[in-house]
Amino acid sequence: MPKVIASPSNQIVKDLVRLSKRSERDTSDLFLIEGYRPITRAMESGFHLEDLYYSTEWFLGENEMSVVQAAESTGTRITQLGREAFAKVTYRDRPEGLLAVGKQWHTKLEDLELSDNPFVLIVESIEKPGNLGTILRSADATGAEAVIVTDPVTDVFNPNVVRASTGVLFKVPVVVTDSASALAFCKTHDIKTLAATPHTDTLYTSVDMTQPIAVVMGSEQFGLSDQMMHAADLQVKLPMLGLADSLNVSAATVVLAYEVVRQRGRG
Amino acid sequence: MPKVIASPSNQIVKDLVRLSKRSERDTSDLFLIEGYRPITRAMESGFHLEDLYYSTEWFLGENEMSVVQAAESTGTRITQLGREAFAKVTYRDRPEGLLAVGKQWHTKLEDLELSDNPFVLIVESIEKPGNLGTILRSADATGAEAVIVTDPVTDVFNPNVVRASTGVLFKVPVVVTDSASALAFCKTHDIKTLAATPHTDTLYTSVDMTQPIAVVMGSEQFGLSDQMMHAADLQVKLPMLGLADSLNVSAATVVLAYEVVRQRGRG
Repeated sequence: MPKVIASPSNQIVKDLVRLSKRSERDTSDLFLIEGYRPITRAMESGFHLEDLYYSTEWFLGENEMSVVQAAESTGTRITQLGREAFAKVTYRDRPEGLLAVGKQWHTKLEDLELSDNPFVLIVESIEKPGNLGTILRSADATGAEAVIVTDPVTDVFNPNVVRASTGVLFKVPVVVTDSASALAFCKTHDIKTLAATPHTDTLYTSVDMTQPIAVVMGSEQFGLSDQMMHAADLQVKLPMLGLADSLNVSAATVVLAYEVVRQRGRG
Repeated sequence: MPKVIASPSNQIVKDLVRLSKRSERDTSDLFLIEGYRPITRAMESGFHLEDLYYSTEWFLGENEMSVVQAAESTGTRITQLGREAFAKVTYRDRPEGLLAVGKQWHTKLEDLELSDNPFVLIVESIEKPGNLGTILRSADATGAEAVIVTDPVTDVFNPNVVRASTGVLFKVPVVVTDSASALAFCKTHDIKTLAATPHTDTLYTSVDMTQPIAVVMGSEQFGLSDQMMHAADLQVKLPMLGLADSLNVSAATVVLAYEVVRQRGRG
């Protein structure tokens, strides 16, 4: 029988709460995965969970216990939490009584296995976890072979990135690096970089995205760095028929990514 | 000199906090607008602010006071809050010391003035304020002539819709109604309804969006109602090259909206 932790002031509970802080994630190299869908997706992707905490009092559906059993059978340490203790560790509005801890992984640019005609996304200094998570979902939907996160402001193991990505984080290859290295990588592999900017007359639909291509997106507040913008092989604009800054960064990303899909005749 | 409210337990502060609740917004017909950008956009759109609360101790930039002056010159009631009092009323992580109260408006379907070849968005039962706000931004960017919000789960005057829309709420005509009325409206005006579904082989890029068209999107959790899906004149699919439910509803919306722009050769 697994042990049950009832007290919210238990040290294990405190350690879990600390993992919501980036400094603690960086130091421990661990991160949190909460909820039925992200946890099952992690396991489906063959990702090993170090720990799984569950609280029957928070279960919403009928399959939660089978997730616990499946994790246990792969050697995950299982701990049961009481209602109060789980309330302390959840970072969701609508907790489902499942919280896992996993080890971070650190894919490098040289680890990427790309096709002969790659399509990748590069996102520079994204600030909001929700945007980064949504971009990961869009990368998966559009068959991007990798997401290269440069000069990160929010780390990819932020609990809200894991949440917003709905577990896609475990599926799409993600590399964290600096912008200069990402640019050098594209140059070496003959991948054209494409940046969106209002300062061009070239429509995004008028450039050739059937060639090896990296769609490069900048931060919510500042857009792309000068370094990235100047280095871009292709500069394109998205029509803006309303206010100048109407489009959210994740919205602009998915529009460009689907243009790659359209031009390549995929789907 | 405007009066200064220092105490967080002042009745005015309590009343402001209550406006974050939907029931209170519904009863009072008022809503909250927080932050420099949404407030300036509201004023630029000619929207009258009933009240503007400011707290110099929270100002982040240098232009906040000019917003207060501009509002005062249009007859808005101005109230200064102390640091603690403002901390109580803000719903932002990064407050800017500006919070306004406005009267809700209720545009009806028959109030809409559409072009001869309209493009509108219909969103049914969207749950998350962030998604509804992002969809409003995308509607503005793609020149949608109206956003028809049917059978709402989150109300359009939710503070997080106002925030996520970055003030576009004050610009794009928004109608709140039920799905049956929205369908009847489209029929009367010869507007074709287009729904996305995985259960078709018709690609979204292969249907004619240059005709009068309404892009219809459903809720995050349940998608479109049977009523809406069956009534749709056009059913299309977005390529999903990864997991089945990879795409966020606001991402799918903006891809379809930009396809309208592309086909119509706008921008």
